[in-house]
Amino acid sequence: MFFKRSAGLTVSEIISLTGAVPRPGAALERRITDVAPLDNAGPRDLIFFDKIKFLPELAATQATVCLTSERMAAHMPSGISALCCADPYRAFIVVARALFPDSMRPSSLFELSGIAPGAHVHPSARLESDVTIDPGAVIGPRAEIGARSIIAAGATIGPEVRIGRDCTIGAGAAIVHALIGDRVIIHSGARIGQDGYGYMTGLKSQEKIPQLGRVIIQDDVEIGTNTTIDRGSIRDTMIGEGCKIDNLVQIGHNVQIGRHCILAGQAGVAGSATLGDYVTCGGKVGISDHLTVGEGAVLAGGSAVITDVPPGARLGGHPALPVREWMRGVVALRSLARRMQPTQSRGTRDGGKE
Amino acid sequence: MFFKRSAGLTVSEIISLTGAVPRPGAALERRITDVAPLDNAGPRDLIFFDKIKFLPELAATQATVCLTSERMAAHMPSGISALCCADPYRAFIVVARALFPDSMRPSSLFELSGIAPGAHVHPSARLESDVTIDPGAVIGPRAEIGARSIIAAGATIGPEVRIGRDCTIGAGAAIVHALIGDRVIIHSGARIGQDGYGYMTGLKSQEKIPQLGRVIIQDDVEIGTNTTIDRGSIRDTMIGEGCKIDNLVQIGHNVQIGRHCILAGQAGVAGSATLGDYVTCGGKVGISDHLTVGEGAVLAGGSAVITDVPPGARLGGHPALPVREWMRGVVALRSLARRMQPTQSRGTRDGGKE
Amino acid sequence: MFFKRSAGLTVSEIISLTGAVPRPGAALERRITDVAPLDNAGPRDLIFFDKIKFLPELAATQATVCLTSERMAAHMPSGISALCCADPYRAFIVVARALFPDSMRPSSLFELSGIAPGAHVHPSARLESDVTIDPGAVIGPRAEIGARSIIAAGATIGPEVRIGRDCTIGAGAAIVHALIGDRVIIHSGARIGQDGYGYMTGLKSQEKIPQLGRVIIQDDVEIGTNTTIDRGSIRDTMIGEGCKIDNLVQIGHNVQIGRHCILAGQAGVAGSATLGDYVTCGGKVGISDHLTVGEGAVLAGGSAVITDVPPGARLGGHPALPVREWMRGVVALRSLARRMQPTQSRGTRDGGKE
Repeated sequence: MFFKRSAGLTVSEIISLTGAVPRPGAALERRITDVAPLDNAGPRDLIFFDKIKFLPELAATQATVCLTSERMAAHMPSGISALCCADPYRAFIVVARALFPDSMRPSSLFELSGIAPGAHVHPSARLESDVTIDPGAVIGPRAEIGARSIIAAGATIGPEVRIGRDCTIGAGAAIVHALIGDRVIIHSGARIGQDGYGYMTGLKSQEKIPQLGRVIIQDDVEIGTNTTIDRGSIRDTMIGEGCKIDNLVQIGHNVQIGRHCILAGQAGVAGSATLGDYVTCGGKVGISDHLTVGEGAVLAGGSAVITDVPPGARLGGHPALPVREWMRGVVALRSLARRMQPTQSRGTRDGGKE
Repeated sequence: MFFKRSAGLTVSEIISLTGAVPRPGAALERRITDVAPLDNAGPRDLIFFDKIKFLPELAATQATVCLTSERMAAHMPSGISALCCADPYRAFIVVARALFPDSMRPSSLFELSGIAPGAHVHPSARLESDVTIDPGAVIGPRAEIGARSIIAAGATIGPEVRIGRDCTIGAGAAIVHALIGDRVIIHSGARIGQDGYGYMTGLKSQEKIPQLGRVIIQDDVEIGTNTTIDRGSIRDTMIGEGCKIDNLVQIGHNVQIGRHCILAGQAGVAGSATLGDYVTCGGKVGISDHLTVGEGAVLAGGSAVITDVPPGARLGGHPALPVREWMRGVVALRSLARRMQPTQSRGTRDGGKE
Repeated sequence: MFFKRSAGLTVSEIISLTGAVPRPGAALERRITDVAPLDNAGPRDLIFFDKIKFLPELAATQATVCLTSERMAAHMPSGISALCCADPYRAFIVVARALFPDSMRPSSLFELSGIAPGAHVHPSARLESDVTIDPGAVIGPRAEIGARSIIAAGATIGPEVRIGRDCTIGAGAAIVHALIGDRVIIHSGARIGQDGYGYMTGLKSQEKIPQLGRVIIQDDVEIGTNTTIDRGSIRDTMIGEGCKIDNLVQIGHNVQIGRHCILAGQAGVAGSATLGDYVTCGGKVGISDHLTVGEGAVLAGGSAVITDVPPGARLGGHPALPVREWMRGVVALRSLARRMQPTQSRGTRDGGKE
């Protein structure tokens, strides 16, 4: 456990925090100090139980306090204080957040506050109060960093970049040509605001198109480690409020992403595409340039999206189709392949070698 | 706008620069200071108009100078000086480049020239004139950096690496075992020259194969942020003149890439593959190891290339096929799936839940 | 050649090292100083010859010592000392490793030993003997680094991280919340131990789930450049002994990877998936969350794995199917598409334009 050990919470405090209802006999004064999965919990760890398939683990657990549902509470072994609520997992997370507030955003690698020796802060940069700058971080001319923000070791903040309050910029992240809101988390190694990928193709070679726009990142966005977001060419690249972007994602120039979108690992959005609010992209989704994905659309992992997507649609496959149609095609192809003459099948021609 | 405000260009100067022909009544002495899209332009911004579908935006624009074609010029509202040329977008980019020469390559994060305090330059490194080294950059023993090159904050240049003239190495990029030409741009976080991925597989474990080659990057190459290029195992990995490689691309050991190739974001080229000149790879293309892709081939985004590709071929799909054949297969499968009995379809079996 | 020139090995020494049997007339006292491919070798370079298709290159080579098999030795030109063994390539690699021991792991970018000026080592960090810390590296509070380990320029090691002996941490890598075994190589820009991607989705926005686990990396693991491994949410993310992970790979929170697995470039393993020992993932493989991939399974490049995979299975395709079934489907679809009426084909409807 790398987080500061918690003073813990009593069962009564957990009840106040979550609105859970204790089953008769719950030990209201018992104190828990950590959370754990069923199969790995000690007597001071809070657990949750919401699926009947985990009954064997529940029977064997060493935990003594468990969040559960009314329906599941009947299975609770004696000796475990059961706390009932509508959504035990959600309540469990609420407790975890209360026990470990430090886990809610990355912290200084040097456990510092203020400007570390070995940080390079340009004299014209403006820092509000309680900003932390780790060793090796570089803050460029006229950059502005809001109160309580943390710039971790080796991060580089370019000239005139503005970063809001309560932000965390991870180790080695690089930010240029960008305006960043409040409570934004940018993980280590993310690259924001570099030149987008724009060339005019001639007969013999490519000529670079100047990339004159910026990246605008609204409040409460989280951006994963080693993710890259290019600045706009002639517009701004825009990431809407509350978006959560995973690791190794690529966002091209001029892309407009609405509010509260989810982009899982290794997704890619090509230049000038537009995503509405509440779009969900699974891992490795690719969205071609200049497309529009409507509000609330859900793109299954690995989808290759090559046409506009209507609001609320659920797509999957390569190329992406409505999920039901995709799955029907997969089934159809398997049944077709099974009916084929063996002589038509490469698998068979190869004598079974794969 | 993060770039230095331009002194601007008069319409006459734009005409000289682009060869455009002014329509009667064009205000030759008017000065523009920026470029902008139709819907976002002010009176001092240059716009271009080359597609009839943008007529509503043209009608409403505040711009007063517009590059367009002879054919489109008839639609120009009065009050806008129209400048006609064969390729209005290309002319627009020419003007943008002239207005913002600083945008053509990344600049020092500290707006420095010379060696910054806080840069770590080994005494045996050789720097030509007017080299800029940002704070936190590390230049190893016997490395050589050509005139006017910029090494941004936190970049690391390994022992004996040679970098040509007028190059830019972005923040936090790491280069080892590499020889790099002139006018090369390597964006932040790119990793060049590390060990390729080579093992001998034994019964019980993998043994590392020494990677003794280098990475050779020819003139005028641009390499995207967080892209990785492994050095050769026994040959050199080679990136030909004028190649443009986007973000998060992986190039394996011994790969030979010809001149003026285009590799879009998250593409991957596995070890010992060879690409001819002028190959274009869309986003997320994967090319298997030891394959040859012929000159001028075009691989659609997301293609999984598992066989050699002849020169000039256009491929797409998973596995990649000639584009026409791929598309015919997509259509065939959709029509097959539609004809299937509902009982054969998983979508239907699931009662419509997706 | 960026490695220290070798003193070389005589043919006799190569014979001792590899167990190869010299053909009559082999020059036992000849000394070679390097290894090279057939078509690029000089008189002091060792070559190997194990495929008849390279006979023309063999005939023209300038090399004078060649590892080969008994069967191929008959083709050896006079003037080349042939050394016969069961696996000439493996023997060749054994010699390469002996000639260039420095190539077996990345070295200090500054060719240092000890703590460089310009390294930031927290006074509470504990370093065993012969640790090398390059300029710009940051070692956090209470971190522990084992004997002979190298922390390259700009790498950041977070509070309480433990790194074993004989490890190499590449330039700009960032490690937090992790315990790392012995002889581990983590290449430049890799990110280990940051927050996994976990949110509770509400009606209006996502709430962050605290990520309280760690990353455990066992002995002899190698992790590629710019690869990302998230720490566990409530368990630990685990990378088993001897795993080899390539560049730009994403490993989600709570993932359990067995021993001696191979994950090629740009592969992705989503949260809480489990891989048994000796699993092989080709490039760009995607494995969905919470799946189990059995021991020894082989997943072809680009596979999209969306169901559990039994031990020893060989899968490919999107979605992934047993390789033979996948290939049969590809053949079936091509033959179906060929039989379609041209009017049903988009390729034809488009008049042949692609």
